[in-house]
Amino acid sequence: MNSITKAPANITVGPLPGSRKVYVEGPMGVPVPFREVALEPSSGEPPIRLYDTSGPYTDPSFVHAIDKGLPALREPWIMARGDTESYVGRQVKPEDNGNASGDYLAPTFPVTRQPRRAKAGGNVTQMHYARKGIITPEMEFVAIRENLLRQQAREHVDRLRARDGVPHDAVIPDDITADWVRQEVACGRAIIPANINHLELEPMAIGRNFLVKINANIGNSAVTSGIAEEVEKLVWSIRWGGDTVMDLSTGRNIHNIREWILRNSPVPIGTVPVYQALEKVGGIAEDLTWDIFRDTLIEQCEQGVDYFTIHAGVRLPYIPMTVDRVTGIVSRGGSIMAKWCLAHHKENFLYTHFADICEIMKAYDVSFSLGDGLRPGAGADANDRAQFAELETLGELTKVAWDQDVQVMIEGPGHVPMHKVQANMIKQREHCGDAPFYTLGPLVTDIAPGYDHITSGIGAAMIGWFGTAMLCYVTPKEHLGLPDREDVRVGVVTYKIAAHAADLAKGHPAARLRDDALSRARFEFRWMDQFNLSLDPEKAQEFHDATLPKEAHKTA
Amino acid sequence: MNSITKAPANITVGPLPGSRKVYVEGPMGVPVPFREVALEPSSGEPPIRLYDTSGPYTDPSFVHAIDKGLPALREPWIMARGDTESYVGRQVKPEDNGNASGDYLAPTFPVTRQPRRAKAGGNVTQMHYARKGIITPEMEFVAIRENLLRQQAREHVDRLRARDGVPHDAVIPDDITADWVRQEVACGRAIIPANINHLELEPMAIGRNFLVKINANIGNSAVTSGIAEEVEKLVWSIRWGGDTVMDLSTGRNIHNIREWILRNSPVPIGTVPVYQALEKVGGIAEDLTWDIFRDTLIEQCEQGVDYFTIHAGVRLPYIPMTVDRVTGIVSRGGSIMAKWCLAHHKENFLYTHFADICEIMKAYDVSFSLGDGLRPGAGADANDRAQFAELETLGELTKVAWDQDVQVMIEGPGHVPMHKVQANMIKQREHCGDAPFYTLGPLVTDIAPGYDHITSGIGAAMIGWFGTAMLCYVTPKEHLGLPDREDVRVGVVTYKIAAHAADLAKGHPAARLRDDALSRARFEFRWMDQFNLSLDPEKAQEFHDATLPKEAHKTA
Repeated sequence: MNSITKAPANITVGPLPGSRKVYVEGPMGVPVPFREVALEPSSGEPPIRLYDTSGPYTDPSFVHAIDKGLPALREPWIMARGDTESYVGRQVKPEDNGNASGDYLAPTFPVTRQPRRAKAGGNVTQMHYARKGIITPEMEFVAIRENLLRQQAREHVDRLRARDGVPHDAVIPDDITADWVRQEVACGRAIIPANINHLELEPMAIGRNFLVKINANIGNSAVTSGIAEEVEKLVWSIRWGGDTVMDLSTGRNIHNIREWILRNSPVPIGTVPVYQALEKVGGIAEDLTWDIFRDTLIEQCEQGVDYFTIHAGVRLPYIPMTVDRVTGIVSRGGSIMAKWCLAHHKENFLYTHFADICEIMKAYDVSFSLGDGLRPGAGADANDRAQFAELETLGELTKVAWDQDVQVMIEGPGHVPMHKVQANMIKQREHCGDAPFYTLGPLVTDIAPGYDHITSGIGAAMIGWFGTAMLCYVTPKEHLGLPDREDVRVGVVTYKIAAHAADLAKGHPAARLRDDALSRARFEFRWMDQFNLSLDPEKAQEFHDATLPKEAHKTA
Repeated sequence: MNSITKAPANITVGPLPGSRKVYVEGPMGVPVPFREVALEPSSGEPPIRLYDTSGPYTDPSFVHAIDKGLPALREPWIMARGDTESYVGRQVKPEDNGNASGDYLAPTFPVTRQPRRAKAGGNVTQMHYARKGIITPEMEFVAIRENLLRQQAREHVDRLRARDGVPHDAVIPDDITADWVRQEVACGRAIIPANINHLELEPMAIGRNFLVKINANIGNSAVTSGIAEEVEKLVWSIRWGGDTVMDLSTGRNIHNIREWILRNSPVPIGTVPVYQALEKVGGIAEDLTWDIFRDTLIEQCEQGVDYFTIHAGVRLPYIPMTVDRVTGIVSRGGSIMAKWCLAHHKENFLYTHFADICEIMKAYDVSFSLGDGLRPGAGADANDRAQFAELETLGELTKVAWDQDVQVMIEGPGHVPMHKVQANMIKQREHCGDAPFYTLGPLVTDIAPGYDHITSGIGAAMIGWFGTAMLCYVTPKEHLGLPDREDVRVGVVTYKIAAHAADLAKGHPAARLRDDALSRARFEFRWMDQFNLSLDPEKAQEFHDATLPKEAHKTA
């Protein structure tokens, strides 16, 4: 069994038990990573390859240095396109870090690199290339990542039965080619969040016809967190399977901590820029301005953030629709914008400046995650007029973004009882032209604080089956406090369950491979194979050993 | 906050935090118990009453003595019917306790009571009474239990919105009367498992038009467990919401331990009699005989077991249908019977003697839980011919049982990916004439040992919505080892989530009351109300306090 070791700065490195990192040759020599689980020789079965979100951290041959960051693997791709320029970026201002100073100021990331942007008037989004018929290395990388399981499934063909599933209009091909990826991105049904300043990224796709993805949220605590601690939250989240990570930090040092996270992240990083903008105006929503917000967008574009949650759908006329709700407006970003709208009695400036935001984002290829600021915070408020009015506006904004070839996904609820879950997916498709849906849960009941990874995992599995492309995790501490390491692990694993259950139900041609291999191991009492093929090999073995600790019990 | 205290024998007693026991006058003066959660005065809201499975243990005025057991509250009801006789029961034999002796023999329950049975040729099942138009005190008790939430909902009418839900053919009335309960039992759509020798029982109903119920499994370990430890497993399970408990003990002392459990149980107890019968033949399936099995049934009928899992559907011709499966036959009872059938190349004696079994059960009112011995143990095997062939036979047997007015529920899978879940419910209804469905999970993926309460909780919530009447819990240790106390708590709470989510989705007229009250508490930062209304108040508060421990943080 592999053991978890720590890199010098207390970053978790090393493979999962029974797994090893393998690579497939990718675009322009960039290797595409997978995780391979070898089975006991007695099984007579080949190893099982798995999609791998964990980055170089699980490769024992990779020497990680937190202050150097990960290799800039996308650099040759971006340089080869020749459509960007480096420039002297925006100067970091004291308010970017909440005016932290002295010992309270988190250190600057030691390696500086000039930001790049599209040459004047240019557009460097993956959607833009896709629509021009260009297959990018990012698309090739994604195609290899998503296709490998299928190749493997064909090798196991004698063990596989007829493909089945109820795809709910998903069209999941037997083979994924780079050109097919391009087509999905061109029509907006999938996104590849990949800021040109996030060179460390291992590209991935979010779309209803790809594997269902999951997001994990991290963020610094109110008390100053150490830099290594913040990077470790990222590494820990992707180790268990987080496909993207949102940095929801508030308070001080937001800028500097984000830099360390981005330089050490192989997965797309999302943020909610209004959180930082609010810090810059001392927490007073009314004092937010377009200029401060715009400046914050550019700050984050230059750092390499891959997608922005923008609450542009919280329109002034929708706010009164929430007054009869049981829980009003519960989204933090939604509350901020509603407060601003009401204080000025003006339309949301994110809505009025939406085309300007697109202009910025297309120069860096930042994707929209159009925020659902009016999402229901209780089952009682699910699917109400406020929620759906906002969703319709998000559909309208999707078209504006697509006019500029900016990539878009749509955020969804929240708290929704089971019988109202599917309507969310149907409405979203109806209004948002099949832009990927990205939902939080939904939680199917409100009565289980402390177990909301489960109440939401039920809704997540269902809505993933219906077509949601990415599921935002919920940890056991939701509504109650800040998640610790164990909560993050449980949250990520719960959402991997939901995403995988959705892939199975949709009829993904290769998802069953892992289930079947594990089931055979179970039937044949190959305990180590059963542990190693599971989503959490450490916990599976720990639970087993709590009753039957002896080595002999794992082979008989 | 109430604290958990222990009765002398280490039995957990005392109310849940913020709750008190309340009673409503029931049939022939027997009080019907509820749990009432008082809200903070600032809320201006009345207390919320909840369905209560926990028995007298959560009543501080009740003094529990494990060696006296619970009050025989059904005794006057049964005596008043005048259709039973007490008799000298079967003598306890050494093999009933696995030939344990001396220090290894668990003590006999100190209070002995002669068993009762129907007078010669009689029938004392709730179904028999129901079909004759008789409303029993058991039915009245059930009606009050199930109706109270509705009365309360009407008092909160100004807060309630229009009833909604997608009932999937459930017909859930606005009011539950004792006569409506009678009708549901008469037509077989619901059962009230209530052996006339289980006098301590607080009757409850299992049926698609009632609240969705959950079952928790307990059982002694291979090593000798203490009597108090076994009773505590029961008390702990029902404290968190277990509606019925199955005693799956194996090994020695089965008879004596079961006696202690029954005498201390306010909920129906189910067993799998073939487990004990197998112990009596030294664990050799081939040596099972109808006589040994029959004797075991009578032994357990006399003790007061309320329902029996009987694997009468594992017919000889179905066994070869499992050979191409990934995981063959995984049900323990199913394997035992399959082994017997193959060894003798004879039809399953439970099938051939099914009418004889009915004759026994109607004299004590033991309900059938027709076992699914061929349930799939992997998603790959779900909904296959073996599984559905058995289900069709269970439908045939249901009619045989109903011909003798014996109550029946049907067990269901197992491991089933999401897109195949609903077909199980549809097939079950088609073949089994709306007899209640009682499913284990189903687990919607096989890749998460250590988290199978979650993989199965997803399937359980869905199938509960589709119409399953009772959900058998799965703990995090499933497939790996024996559950400890924390596993049992997590398993029960997960299944309460699934059952409640199903009630909400079906449109139960009062289920939302608790969600809405908790959501209002959440929105108004009434932390103590939020904790106390939750399924696990202790964990909710513990999680909250891990981040914000101060008292002030619970009121602001």
